[in-house]
Amino acid sequence: MRHATFACLAAFPLFAVGPAMAQTPPPGTLEVPAKTLSAPGDVSPQLQKIIGAPLRTNWDKRPKTGEEWKPVADAGAAALIKNVPGMMERLKVKVEKTTIDGVRAFIVTPETIAPENANRQILHMRGGCYVLNPGEAALPEALLMAGFGHVRVISVDYRMPPEAYFPAALDDGITVYKALMKTTPAKNMAFIGTSAGGALVLEMGLKAKQLGLPMPGAIASGTPMSDVTKVGDTFQTNAMVDNVLVSPDGFCDAGAIVYANGHDMKDPLISPVYGDMNGFPPTILTSGTRDLLLSNTVRVHRKLRQAGIDAALQVYEGMAHAHYLRDDTAPETKEVFEEIALFFDKHLGK
Amino acid sequence: MRHATFACLAAFPLFAVGPAMAQTPPPGTLEVPAKTLSAPGDVSPQLQKIIGAPLRTNWDKRPKTGEEWKPVADAGAAALIKNVPGMMERLKVKVEKTTIDGVRAFIVTPETIAPENANRQILHMRGGCYVLNPGEAALPEALLMAGFGHVRVISVDYRMPPEAYFPAALDDGITVYKALMKTTPAKNMAFIGTSAGGALVLEMGLKAKQLGLPMPGAIASGTPMSDVTKVGDTFQTNAMVDNVLVSPDGFCDAGAIVYANGHDMKDPLISPVYGDMNGFPPTILTSGTRDLLLSNTVRVHRKLRQAGIDAALQVYEGMAHAHYLRDDTAPETKEVFEEIALFFDKHLGK
Repeated sequence: MRHATFACLAAFPLFAVGPAMAQTPPPGTLEVPAKTLSAPGDVSPQLQKIIGAPLRTNWDKRPKTGEEWKPVADAGAAALIKNVPGMMERLKVKVEKTTIDGVRAFIVTPETIAPENANRQILHMRGGCYVLNPGEAALPEALLMAGFGHVRVISVDYRMPPEAYFPAALDDGITVYKALMKTTPAKNMAFIGTSAGGALVLEMGLKAKQLGLPMPGAIASGTPMSDVTKVGDTFQTNAMVDNVLVSPDGFCDAGAIVYANGHDMKDPLISPVYGDMNGFPPTILTSGTRDLLLSNTVRVHRKLRQAGIDAALQVYEGMAHAHYLRDDTAPETKEVFEEIALFFDKHLGK
Repeated sequence: MRHATFACLAAFPLFAVGPAMAQTPPPGTLEVPAKTLSAPGDVSPQLQKIIGAPLRTNWDKRPKTGEEWKPVADAGAAALIKNVPGMMERLKVKVEKTTIDGVRAFIVTPETIAPENANRQILHMRGGCYVLNPGEAALPEALLMAGFGHVRVISVDYRMPPEAYFPAALDDGITVYKALMKTTPAKNMAFIGTSAGGALVLEMGLKAKQLGLPMPGAIASGTPMSDVTKVGDTFQTNAMVDNVLVSPDGFCDAGAIVYANGHDMKDPLISPVYGDMNGFPPTILTSGTRDLLLSNTVRVHRKLRQAGIDAALQVYEGMAHAHYLRDDTAPETKEVFEEIALFFDKHLGK
């Protein structure tokens, strides 16, 4: 009877779950004990350092008005902008500040534009919870796209609280898109953005449909704030695991609420996962296994696939929210943007 | 000075992580407090029930020999097989037991074979940690593929401990593949498998290269046991969250150790993420946000993409390990297999 020890295992094969345990909490809930995570060893040293960093300081501070956010955003931008000159040098890109039909923007031009990209432009919407990263602080993702993709990028420095509220960011993006269409066919353009920017590029797709504008040739949406109503299972499972956003009740939620300014948070123009994505162009989505918004990335991917859209998903080992924007020297950063560049090249007109 | 409350937020913008906190554990580690998870509300009622089930009973029991596993496997199979007749009826498929060049197998034929699939066959390798789901217990995934994909499926009832050890399962798969090639061109065939089966279909790709056999037209690898050395970040982050595998130190690890029978666990023929995937056919990978093997799914995806392979990733909201095999009436189950069928149709010869 040496097998008796394991006999009770037998009644519950791999692909069936056992009956409720004694003393279980309410049906459907699961008690997960405290744990200590190590930074994963199967990523680059640069990414390991980023993943292994402690939780973002003051992740639970929640400014409640545009006026309260402004000094936070300005000081944060001042810190972030210090990285920009080095990035420009390493990525071999130039930046020109401009205004396009009244909207502030940056034109980011790589030293070498790939021949196939000669007649293409990428429209970039920055991240930052709709309240952070004004001015040059918007640039890192645009620099990475231009540098690794060898393509011209127009980064929209859209209005934010307290200057303007919903739907100002979206309107500014559409204004620039319309202006660019005067010289570049829509099918030769792509939208790219991360976090709030990842949501905005989807919102712009929905808005373009409403306005009867042509769709861009492709969209790249990184870890999008696609659902600001806090629906999404990784809001639970990756809470206190994602060292950037940390919690669904943290600073980023507070930013979205201030931007919404009383508007319905479930409106697809601020929670685009609820939008009708029929007719969308090919779309590539990026996330990581520790991302608080992993669910809200994969939910958009499913939504697009259900609408028959050519949608690609890339999920990176160990990455929390937007870790791929942190270090242009990490090989994973290059991989993310080269994948996006390949996807654009496959789908954009020339 | 109403902004003073938030001034300290300012020094750490969204895309930068703050300095170490006082009393932090060793660098790179993160203390995650205990939490209570609810079953997600944004999935079907069927899937919600599966996700909300308690942890698998006896997930921490670790049989140590093939002889100890056999009664566990037999009893588990007896429980699982009860679902097969109902599935066959709902999915409108027939099953014929056979032997192919000495290897036990099942031929699964749908009532209607789609015209484009007339000359195609799908080779199925079952899951079960290399030690579970013998005989008809192998069938659920094969039934789902045949029923939703309207295609003929050959399910390999490969040898397991204590009958045989590494590389018996792989050898049996290759034997059947070679036999099928006598009547069906390799490019008209695909491999499909989940868990151990998800690893085996990758191992078969690597082995086919070694043997100079032609590649199949496509591979579908679901939540593969692609790394049995316990590397992979979601082994930590989804431990005690995935209600099927539960832990990297649970029953499934014990099964892989028994199958390996002393063989190097890092050999790509048992941990295929370490293999050279150049020359692989188009491959589709499936996982879920609560999957303990999410990392080992996305790591294979990256590995394939780095080799320039046309690889697609689908990650489902809330699903733990192989939840998509649990309930053929869940719309998500249909979605998983219809995506795989579409992928096969796009890439297989006719």
